[in-house]
Amino acid sequence: MPHKKAQNLEIDNLDIQILSILMNNATTPYTEIAKELIVSGGTIHVRMKKLEEMGVIKGASLEVDPQKLGFDITAFLGIYLEKGSQYNDAVRQLKEIKEIVELYYTTGSWSIFAKIVCHDTAHLREVLNEHIQSVPGIQRTETFISLEESIKRQISLE
Amino acid sequence: MPHKKAQNLEIDNLDIQILSILMNNATTPYTEIAKELIVSGGTIHVRMKKLEEMGVIKGASLEVDPQKLGFDITAFLGIYLEKGSQYNDAVRQLKEIKEIVELYYTTGSWSIFAKIVCHDTAHLREVLNEHIQSVPGIQRTETFISLEESIKRQISLE
Amino acid sequence: MPHKKAQNLEIDNLDIQILSILMNNATTPYTEIAKELIVSGGTIHVRMKKLEEMGVIKGASLEVDPQKLGFDITAFLGIYLEKGSQYNDAVRQLKEIKEIVELYYTTGSWSIFAKIVCHDTAHLREVLNEHIQSVPGIQRTETFISLEESIKRQISLE
Amino acid sequence: MPHKKAQNLEIDNLDIQILSILMNNATTPYTEIAKELIVSGGTIHVRMKKLEEMGVIKGASLEVDPQKLGFDITAFLGIYLEKGSQYNDAVRQLKEIKEIVELYYTTGSWSIFAKIVCHDTAHLREVLNEHIQSVPGIQRTETFISLEESIKRQISLE
Amino acid sequence: MPHKKAQNLEIDNLDIQILSILMNNATTPYTEIAKELIVSGGTIHVRMKKLEEMGVIKGASLEVDPQKLGFDITAFLGIYLEKGSQYNDAVRQLKEIKEIVELYYTTGSWSIFAKIVCHDTAHLREVLNEHIQSVPGIQRTETFISLEESIKRQISLE
Amino acid sequence: MPHKKAQNLEIDNLDIQILSILMNNATTPYTEIAKELIVSGGTIHVRMKKLEEMGVIKGASLEVDPQKLGFDITAFLGIYLEKGSQYNDAVRQLKEIKEIVELYYTTGSWSIFAKIVCHDTAHLREVLNEHIQSVPGIQRTETFISLEESIKRQISLE
Amino acid sequence: MPHKKAQNLEIDNLDIQILSILMNNATTPYTEIAKELIVSGGTIHVRMKKLEEMGVIKGASLEVDPQKLGFDITAFLGIYLEKGSQYNDAVRQLKEIKEIVELYYTTGSWSIFAKIVCHDTAHLREVLNEHIQSVPGIQRTETFISLEESIKRQISLE
Amino acid sequence: MPHKKAQNLEIDNLDIQILSILMNNATTPYTEIAKELIVSGGTIHVRMKKLEEMGVIKGASLEVDPQKLGFDITAFLGIYLEKGSQYNDAVRQLKEIKEIVELYYTTGSWSIFAKIVCHDTAHLREVLNEHIQSVPGIQRTETFISLEESIKRQISLE
Repeated sequence: MPHKKAQNLEIDNLDIQILSILMNNATTPYTEIAKELIVSGGTIHVRMKKLEEMGVIKGASLEVDPQKLGFDITAFLGIYLEKGSQYNDAVRQLKEIKEIVELYYTTGSWSIFAKIVCHDTAHLREVLNEHIQSVPGIQRTETFISLEESIKRQISLE
Repeated sequence: MPHKKAQNLEIDNLDIQILSILMNNATTPYTEIAKELIVSGGTIHVRMKKLEEMGVIKGASLEVDPQKLGFDITAFLGIYLEKGSQYNDAVRQLKEIKEIVELYYTTGSWSIFAKIVCHDTAHLREVLNEHIQSVPGIQRTETFISLEESIKRQISLE
Repeated sequence: MPHKKAQNLEIDNLDIQILSILMNNATTPYTEIAKELIVSGGTIHVRMKKLEEMGVIKGASLEVDPQKLGFDITAFLGIYLEKGSQYNDAVRQLKEIKEIVELYYTTGSWSIFAKIVCHDTAHLREVLNEHIQSVPGIQRTETFISLEESIKRQISLE
Repeated sequence: MPHKKAQNLEIDNLDIQILSILMNNATTPYTEIAKELIVSGGTIHVRMKKLEEMGVIKGASLEVDPQKLGFDITAFLGIYLEKGSQYNDAVRQLKEIKEIVELYYTTGSWSIFAKIVCHDTAHLREVLNEHIQSVPGIQRTETFISLEESIKRQISLE
Repeated sequence: MPHKKAQNLEIDNLDIQILSILMNNATTPYTEIAKELIVSGGTIHVRMKKLEEMGVIKGASLEVDPQKLGFDITAFLGIYLEKGSQYNDAVRQLKEIKEIVELYYTTGSWSIFAKIVCHDTAHLREVLNEHIQSVPGIQRTETFISLEESIKRQISLE
Repeated sequence: MPHKKAQNLEIDNLDIQILSILMNNATTPYTEIAKELIVSGGTIHVRMKKLEEMGVIKGASLEVDPQKLGFDITAFLGIYLEKGSQYNDAVRQLKEIKEIVELYYTTGSWSIFAKIVCHDTAHLREVLNEHIQSVPGIQRTETFISLEESIKRQISLE
Repeated sequence: MPHKKAQNLEIDNLDIQILSILMNNATTPYTEIAKELIVSGGTIHVRMKKLEEMGVIKGASLEVDPQKLGFDITAFLGIYLEKGSQYNDAVRQLKEIKEIVELYYTTGSWSIFAKIVCHDTAHLREVLNEHIQSVPGIQRTETFISLEESIKRQISLE
Repeated sequence: MPHKKAQNLEIDNLDIQILSILMNNATTPYTEIAKELIVSGGTIHVRMKKLEEMGVIKGASLEVDPQKLGFDITAFLGIYLEKGSQYNDAVRQLKEIKEIVELYYTTGSWSIFAKIVCHDTAHLREVLNEHIQSVPGIQRTETFISLEESIKRQISLE
């Protein structure tokens, strides 16, 4: 991480190395990490506790293959609001729609940009037409569909 | 998962329940899962092994807060290729650019849609101008930046 | 049809061959089909009845040349709704406009995509301005016109 | 057909009535048509022969349900050519791609507008990326997908 | 005019020749036209009367150089209506704005397309902001400005 | 700062009144104009000569109804050049295409904006595809069609 | 035709030379300017007074580096109004938002074009979402961000 | 400046107050600033020297009214490059075009965004067509023109 940007002073190189290993595989045992980095297991524990307390680590999640679970469609949505000021209210309601897995307030022409995961095109139509487009304040949406996911990985810390 | 879509017959309700618990927290001990679902710990082991062999489970990853690690900018890129047929070659080179964390082949007007994570706007300029736009076959890019991440969660299986 | 997608198990190769012949020419006599495929005429009858009961076959239609009947303009319409949630109501009223021959709910920036057939540009203006744009919920339309139809054919089953 | 546009003088009201019946159901027996329109069966034969010779009738086709045959995706493509003058060459090659069922030269921003039918999103990706986008002269495509077909019917002659 | 399109039978080659001469210069004396086309002056009178009665000729207009009269800005406007159905009302009011010299109902994304002539950019701002954008039903406009007029001529009849 | 536009001081109110009358009807006799404006016929002659010498008056043209002459389609074209610097060469060739009646260099996204007049959609296709799009330097065109001309008039001088 | 822009005849070459020197560096002493242009210091005083009275000179401003003062984001906004006629009211309120440093009424598709300066992306989100988008009459905004300022200079008078 | 963002520690409130006064009027005498802020004149000198050495202050510039100097047109340009990687070369050449007063590398769909100042539309055409569009690597430009400048001010530091 040789970038010029001033870094949080509490995070040192060892922290970065621990994080890098666990970002690849969250279930790596601490003993293995300690061995690889030539430090004691206790050090790993201390560092992990610090990183969790600092909020650097937010949790660990299982990565699944959505298609193997019957989710064939990944779609992206640009959402136009009737009024930009309706953002907070709209987000509150969009959180209730479980097919939405990511949602951002963005620059560019859309007010909201979202990623949704559906079973098939009929399911996507239902989510768009019956759930998303009936949220008050949402004027219209622009949808595009992923036909292939070619890269999906963690931020590289090194 | 009451959706009409025919599901993979090898995955039953218990599998779904196990996955749901681990997708929330990948480090939940099997004994705890077993207790919650009122099955034996061995059953959890058997099911997990099956789900891994089927490719349903691809791994576990540590979730970190990019901003706490000095990554202040999340940007989305629509990429136009000079020729749509250059997709495979372009992807091969884009994989070398570590700031790109997701990349899709999509419907709509862009050939490629990508998500990148950068330290600051100067870093974003460098990634766009010096790395991405010099990949052969890439004609131009449309970039928009996340100003706030309001939803980020796993697919809900239930 | 060597595609990897799991097919409806009730449809076999003979069904596909019969459909292919009739999709080319819906008035081919069953005796001729039977002769070509080296099966009995009764087999064709049995298969056709099955395909109709399964809903695979929906009917037969006469193909006419619209221009020879005075329809010189084929236009495509992207329709924006005031609110995406007005789709069902809008479709109900659009069905009353007989110049609309196809209508879809689509991804992308339009809510509705339609194909219309008109006599001339004055007729198109009348359909757009007096009929389509006065349907409640329709905000505006983007129209483009076919200047030449270069391909128009059935799905190839083989 | 009370429209002001001067009609082909060889087509009279009886022709229109015969065509209307057969456009609804191409397999209606001539005797039934004759009975309904209170003319002799011979008249129907004479008129049909005339309409075929005039090129008004181009054939009859079986209507099938594409989804029942494993075609889940109907997509629309706006195609940009590197040079508008490459239209004729591009069309010649696009005719070889059997998933393309309709293709037009249109006004608006696209050079070519096409309708394609595919099994699933993986098949669509293959058709776009490996077949359509490798046709010489095609620069890029804009794709949108039908999520629901709400109207599909013949031109109304009356 | 060798184009395949069926022409109005009442207009013959002599009419076209007369029109061509006068479309170049509306003040050419009939005697000169008669001499050039080797017919009598009376024939020119008869033909002109016929063409006026048929509505082929609508008048004669002086061509002036707008810049020499202090009109430095020619602008084009795409106008979006709140509802497409407001076209007739909007046009009635737009006719009162004397800077609008041409106005069309068009295909594409705009409801109305207009050409306006102004003295300078301050005048254009006033016309857009105070006159055009306050017409009920007009939502917004897209303006572009001519920086150079390179072709301006009559239809060629030959 | 030698740039500033020379102000025409030679045009007075009487000139404007004469021009206004003739812009309405280019064939109004000078005697009638003189009577209306209460000046001598000689004054009209003197003023007209001055206005012609100054280049204010460029000529007089017959106004015809294009539809009555078999020109049913008025289309507008936004033209993109491969390189903006090819403007002058492209214009030289576009002047040879007689269906182009107006052509401008404009602000906005197009390099060139043109108005063309055609017999029918087949003629438009031919002009676009065979003539305009084969001009070297023209990359692609965006076309929209007038469905109704609602205003067409001269600049109002008063 | 009372519109024509009054031409400034009071500015001569010496004025232009004085302005050029001061536009480069507003704190150049008059004695130095006088020496460079080989005129008396009194002449400079007279000319400066005239230029100030004419409104040619509006003031002098310190140029600072916004980034050094903690303003890392320069963003540009295209603003769409619900109705173009709301421009004056909207501008009055936008003037209260101190992050807006420039604002124009423009041709093209936006009603208003603005430049804003913010501390970081969180600040930009707050300005857009809480301040700008809650101004009555503003429908939505299109934002883009400067990643590098490559030219920033005064008009060249020579 | 109560914003949460960590500020450069070397700049204190007094510096901000001095800058604010001079950003309003760069020619305010130090003695007057000292009096207003109730500090010694020497303090102002010390602080100004520090701010100059830190690069916070880059200079002082005369503000002029471009229209009073014959510059009637302020235009904004979105520039598309043939390849995004040509940015540095293109900028080097664009710096030679003196009508360009600001130039940025931006997110969104354009590679480069520039502000130019011209005498009139003929001058703008010349700058666009003969200078900017002949820079190697520039494919095309999108131009829009300011019809009114409603806000133009310095960043507010307080």
